[in-house]
Amino acid sequence: MISSGKVIKLFYDISSPYSWLAFEVLCRYKNIWNVELKLKPAYLAGVMYGSGNQPPVLNPSKLLYMTSDLTLLSQYFGVPMYRPSKLIKKDSVIPMRFVTAVAEKEKDGDDLVEKVSRELWKRMWSTHQDIVQPASLTEVGIKAGFSANEVDDILILAKSQQIKDRLTSITNEALKYKCFGLPFIVVQVDGKAGVFFGSDRFELMAYFLGEKWFGPHPT
Amino acid sequence: MISSGKVIKLFYDISSPYSWLAFEVLCRYKNIWNVELKLKPAYLAGVMYGSGNQPPVLNPSKLLYMTSDLTLLSQYFGVPMYRPSKLIKKDSVIPMRFVTAVAEKEKDGDDLVEKVSRELWKRMWSTHQDIVQPASLTEVGIKAGFSANEVDDILILAKSQQIKDRLTSITNEALKYKCFGLPFIVVQVDGKAGVFFGSDRFELMAYFLGEKWFGPHPT
Repeated sequence: MISSGKVIKLFYDISSPYSWLAFEVLCRYKNIWNVELKLKPAYLAGVMYGSGNQPPVLNPSKLLYMTSDLTLLSQYFGVPMYRPSKLIKKDSVIPMRFVTAVAEKEKDGDDLVEKVSRELWKRMWSTHQDIVQPASLTEVGIKAGFSANEVDDILILAKSQQIKDRLTSITNEALKYKCFGLPFIVVQVDGKAGVFFGSDRFELMAYFLGEKWFGPHPT
Repeated sequence: MISSGKVIKLFYDISSPYSWLAFEVLCRYKNIWNVELKLKPAYLAGVMYGSGNQPPVLNPSKLLYMTSDLTLLSQYFGVPMYRPSKLIKKDSVIPMRFVTAVAEKEKDGDDLVEKVSRELWKRMWSTHQDIVQPASLTEVGIKAGFSANEVDDILILAKSQQIKDRLTSITNEALKYKCFGLPFIVVQVDGKAGVFFGSDRFELMAYFLGEKWFGPHPT
């Protein structure tokens, strides 16, 4: 692929369902818009803390809105996310370190990071399964195409200081862009950079890129 | 007009530039989507207080985002809003009572409410002029098509208990829908109601209505 010079960095955390939407839409559009999509697994709690932002779920009205909003978005975007009746509140640091370890292993491109992230989102927002136990992460890794031995290596790597530091470093990279929540999308084109928060700015992003928005199902 | 049974209620405050966007887009689309657009001038500070929500401008990163975001949205939507370098922080209760008084005078439809609201947005977010002094409101009223005498009556009416109560009542109507910020848009179609927050959900709103989104310039 000859580089178009257009780059989209997607900062995301699998604990954020809106991140899943942005992830799927950008995966669908990366060839259509001829952009290099860089997946940037980050840590949402670190972003919220670092930017001094209040999570929307702390406000009852916002929480109610999010629940009905996700239902409609899920239908329209064709991403099977459902808010469980009882959300098992789990810190996402373990699965995000797992994704970061996969990124470390995968030197060329991020095909496996994409697959692992999608499997984690499915578990958290579609089938509502555990995402922190080693057995769960092993299942995710195998579904993404790793061998059992490879997953064992990734699980060990995920606990290393190197990977902890790497996740912190990507989270800090997002904060340098003045990120205050996820998904946070940095679009670089013709020497300028635009930032987009959330999963409802794709049409505006296309305008910024000088490309077309064909809705959530471009093909 | 034969009623299609489709109703859109737009709760807005002229202190919110995102409300201006939603207002212009819905004015452009009301005939295309064959909906009855009901303008609902409300009071943003009352919504924030009543829902326990934190204004985004309190967070430095969100404020920075809003500023660049508004610039791009202004270009794309063709709504001439600019954040002044120094925002004169003015409570919007006086102009919103003025709009409410116009609504009270205008028994049939809301053509004048539309014109007065637009003039107020222009002053606050385009030409950066005062929006609380009687002379400013008189200018707004005359630009919207009222005579000087009519504006005097509206200015008196705007200070009455009846109008104060009416603005509170519309703000409370928004809060009953679990509103937590403005613009807040309630879409009623086929016996179901959907709520949409902000000015970035028009495509999703079209989907909910069973109508088409043609971008910000539909004609």
